[in-house]
Amino acid sequence: MKSQKATAILLLSCPDQKGIVAEISSFIYKHNGNIIHSDQHTDFETRTYFMRIEWELEGFQIKDEQIEEAFSPIAKKFNMNWELHFSKNIKRMAIFVSKLDHCLYDVLLKTKSKELNAEIPLVISNHMDLKPIADYFNIPFHHFPVIPENKEEVEKKEIELLKSRNIDLIVLARYMQILGPSFVKAYPNKIINIHHSFLPAFIGAKPYQQAYNRGVKVIGATSHYVTEELDNGPIIEQDVIRVSHRDSLEDFIQKGKELEKIVLSRAIKYHLEDKTLVFGNKTVVFD
Amino acid sequence: MKSQKATAILLLSCPDQKGIVAEISSFIYKHNGNIIHSDQHTDFETRTYFMRIEWELEGFQIKDEQIEEAFSPIAKKFNMNWELHFSKNIKRMAIFVSKLDHCLYDVLLKTKSKELNAEIPLVISNHMDLKPIADYFNIPFHHFPVIPENKEEVEKKEIELLKSRNIDLIVLARYMQILGPSFVKAYPNKIINIHHSFLPAFIGAKPYQQAYNRGVKVIGATSHYVTEELDNGPIIEQDVIRVSHRDSLEDFIQKGKELEKIVLSRAIKYHLEDKTLVFGNKTVVFD
Amino acid sequence: MKSQKATAILLLSCPDQKGIVAEISSFIYKHNGNIIHSDQHTDFETRTYFMRIEWELEGFQIKDEQIEEAFSPIAKKFNMNWELHFSKNIKRMAIFVSKLDHCLYDVLLKTKSKELNAEIPLVISNHMDLKPIADYFNIPFHHFPVIPENKEEVEKKEIELLKSRNIDLIVLARYMQILGPSFVKAYPNKIINIHHSFLPAFIGAKPYQQAYNRGVKVIGATSHYVTEELDNGPIIEQDVIRVSHRDSLEDFIQKGKELEKIVLSRAIKYHLEDKTLVFGNKTVVFD
Amino acid sequence: MKSQKATAILLLSCPDQKGIVAEISSFIYKHNGNIIHSDQHTDFETRTYFMRIEWELEGFQIKDEQIEEAFSPIAKKFNMNWELHFSKNIKRMAIFVSKLDHCLYDVLLKTKSKELNAEIPLVISNHMDLKPIADYFNIPFHHFPVIPENKEEVEKKEIELLKSRNIDLIVLARYMQILGPSFVKAYPNKIINIHHSFLPAFIGAKPYQQAYNRGVKVIGATSHYVTEELDNGPIIEQDVIRVSHRDSLEDFIQKGKELEKIVLSRAIKYHLEDKTLVFGNKTVVFD
Repeated sequence: MKSQKATAILLLSCPDQKGIVAEISSFIYKHNGNIIHSDQHTDFETRTYFMRIEWELEGFQIKDEQIEEAFSPIAKKFNMNWELHFSKNIKRMAIFVSKLDHCLYDVLLKTKSKELNAEIPLVISNHMDLKPIADYFNIPFHHFPVIPENKEEVEKKEIELLKSRNIDLIVLARYMQILGPSFVKAYPNKIINIHHSFLPAFIGAKPYQQAYNRGVKVIGATSHYVTEELDNGPIIEQDVIRVSHRDSLEDFIQKGKELEKIVLSRAIKYHLEDKTLVFGNKTVVFD
Repeated sequence: MKSQKATAILLLSCPDQKGIVAEISSFIYKHNGNIIHSDQHTDFETRTYFMRIEWELEGFQIKDEQIEEAFSPIAKKFNMNWELHFSKNIKRMAIFVSKLDHCLYDVLLKTKSKELNAEIPLVISNHMDLKPIADYFNIPFHHFPVIPENKEEVEKKEIELLKSRNIDLIVLARYMQILGPSFVKAYPNKIINIHHSFLPAFIGAKPYQQAYNRGVKVIGATSHYVTEELDNGPIIEQDVIRVSHRDSLEDFIQKGKELEKIVLSRAIKYHLEDKTLVFGNKTVVFD
Repeated sequence: MKSQKATAILLLSCPDQKGIVAEISSFIYKHNGNIIHSDQHTDFETRTYFMRIEWELEGFQIKDEQIEEAFSPIAKKFNMNWELHFSKNIKRMAIFVSKLDHCLYDVLLKTKSKELNAEIPLVISNHMDLKPIADYFNIPFHHFPVIPENKEEVEKKEIELLKSRNIDLIVLARYMQILGPSFVKAYPNKIINIHHSFLPAFIGAKPYQQAYNRGVKVIGATSHYVTEELDNGPIIEQDVIRVSHRDSLEDFIQKGKELEKIVLSRAIKYHLEDKTLVFGNKTVVFD
Repeated sequence: MKSQKATAILLLSCPDQKGIVAEISSFIYKHNGNIIHSDQHTDFETRTYFMRIEWELEGFQIKDEQIEEAFSPIAKKFNMNWELHFSKNIKRMAIFVSKLDHCLYDVLLKTKSKELNAEIPLVISNHMDLKPIADYFNIPFHHFPVIPENKEEVEKKEIELLKSRNIDLIVLARYMQILGPSFVKAYPNKIINIHHSFLPAFIGAKPYQQAYNRGVKVIGATSHYVTEELDNGPIIEQDVIRVSHRDSLEDFIQKGKELEKIVLSRAIKYHLEDKTLVFGNKTVVFD
């Protein structure tokens, strides 16, 4: 359940040790904060501690812009990787598409209905096909045709545009281009892709065709952060649906479209609500 | 992941208010405890706070038998309902059965393989049919035939037996008798039943027949704590499986048997690991 | 897999007896038809036989408009309830809505992308809220405000309109009015509703609230043909999704919206492809 | 629904062409057979037709031992691959195990309760650990220790034993040895394995470890016919279960055990009921 009041969210990981919870919760309590959510996880293999803690800011005795500084000594003491988020800061999300419209429609409709709490300042595509959809939702549409020869240059321009629009999150909604390494580096753990298979099965092109050829009895979809290695980034969400010999390749694709929408929008939602933490090639998702 | 070391588990609920986490975690930290799991939940409707916190006892500076007393002032301050459990105390579980053997086998096998961490001092039945199974697992089998005329008297004897064996948890593994109100009162939130439908659909007798007659496309199973009102206790776990017109009543029953085993053993596991909290007619299950 | 060629579909039920398949398949073969799908089911309780058989019309030696007459003697001989459909006849579907837009968008988008093979000549609503959506898809929107006093009269006008538009199928896409008995009688097994619970649990109003109050661990959605008895018609499709104590009522509603779309559109698809047969209060769905 | 009466089952595939159904159903009808199940499938890519047809033998005018000969001309005419089975012939199933007992228990219990309709004349293992289980079920247990040096020789002896016991189906119930090519050739499409991943992900050793390392959000199990290429045979059944960051490798293994049992026993059931057809590296499963 979401609080109607403004909240702060602390997302952190650090070497596991005694006293972390006590210190953090005392920090919040001492300054009159009301914790409304607190999730933690310990990875026992690497002895790493993960936490997401959210508290209401009403009555909190530190001003928003000073919380970071006030918390810093604790973060240092425990050697934390940490981020501080405020619920009032709506994330700005760019959507990349090619020609398929189902994920685009789904993300736009869920954003419109506030299921996804984001602003969408722009849609970027290497084709013109989906411009009418962006138009219908009153979202600026930017056309960046890509050919192998101009890819690096185009990506530079895209990054410039994204930076100029203060984009926090990039969603590849069935975008049929592979992003280059410098693009990926510019947005670490900020690019979410939907791959239409249960990874790591069927990496690369035409996963439904691969699945059909292999004769599987379930097909899947995987949403993951994009890293330099194709289809190998940290998985945020996966789900599957049954198929049978009665399903043609076309049926695989149609059933898969439903899955892609569901899996992608769940992953986006987790990210927008600051519920994901990446460690190594895995994620902690505090659902 | 379970700790290999001995742990203490605090399970509590109280009116939501500031400072609970800070106080509890400081209590543990001050006495040198290492928190390995901490889950919390706030029910915003009733403003109730729920917590399960587990810490390693190695190095903890309060002796096991004194923790209760030491924690009492905090519990009082926040007006808590609370329980303290120790991982070293293996729970003692009685199984009630009638004639169907699938849930009995499943619970016994999972207990034998330590998936369910319990001792089973006895099996009770109103029939003799399943005695050979108890024998195979070297578990005393007690036969209590029940007829409407002697039910109350029989239940008294059963309770005596259960008390004499220090039973912590009673599992109704497709036990075909309805327990009387005084039996239920003797073990509040300590009796787990498996009902073979997705409650609240198909309460009462012959739920598969009811489901078959209704023409449903999914069937379910529900594990719940037993209360005085039939099939209406707090639900711990539910799951479903698809059926179609091709499935006969017999197929419903067979598919359902798999579900019943899975749903019942998950519920037992949650209870054995002190992960369930009852409030009103609902449960919080910290999975 | 769908044939690219024009096909005929025979949908029938009759008392089970020897020779049905032989007679029907010989009828098709004799006139040079190529069977591409054949599904059958026998309900052993009532000894009823169900069949769906589809064949390509290319080269078939009976003209489309004469097949009915040619097949009649066989139908009589076996005392069949039967329907003959042609794949070239696209069904005409009316959508009824109130204020919620998710199912409407989903049906319109899936129809646009040909996942649902139908024409939508009109949208009917008791509110004006969703008119802009119908406009965007260029579908006439008809506003029929309903109050208890005028309900019967309004329904008469709606039926007139539907008849004048040759509507084959009516979809209640979260339409918040209960249809009167004469409306239901006018379209037997031609009105598909989506109910937001796994029926028969939580019949009637506010099923998510009911589910939330009961503390269930799965929620569901059910698509069924509308009969005079509320939420009690033959079920076409059901599905569920897990919930937990962490889910608020608002989360139930949001998770449920996904389910409703999926379950409703599957049911519509089955109907549009002539894959459903109703018997008593159940369906045979040849998926 | 199963018929209580003796039935014959014809399982066939052939090039798709007109008249197959007519010919087969007329053959059965002419000799007074009552068809109780008929499933068909057309693979449009390869234009291959698949059929499973089952009829009651009571009153059928051809003696069991003469049906094969009587049907032969039809089979020849359509160039069929075909098998004729009789429900009265209970299949004889050998189970291969190593040290893990969950699948063994599951198959034995389901066979005992007639969910799996088979005889189990023997259990074969490369270890002695599970002999007591075979003893409990009164099934002869044969110990064949395998080392790389003697593998071929041991497999020869196993085949001899299997042949002498007229084994129809071999089930690898978490058998930790890879069968050699001559063993596989001796039982084409008669050896069913359970692999503990959703193939083709995580082929080979330690799939749960692989899945854990990859950070997947669902794990799976796959039952397939064994071919010479490791974990690459035709898939009969697959299913999955959700996992999260909270699940340790040990949890993966425990959740997976449930899946393995379910997926393996479903695949065995399909095979025992003559519902599977292999084509290329895929299966048609008439559920």
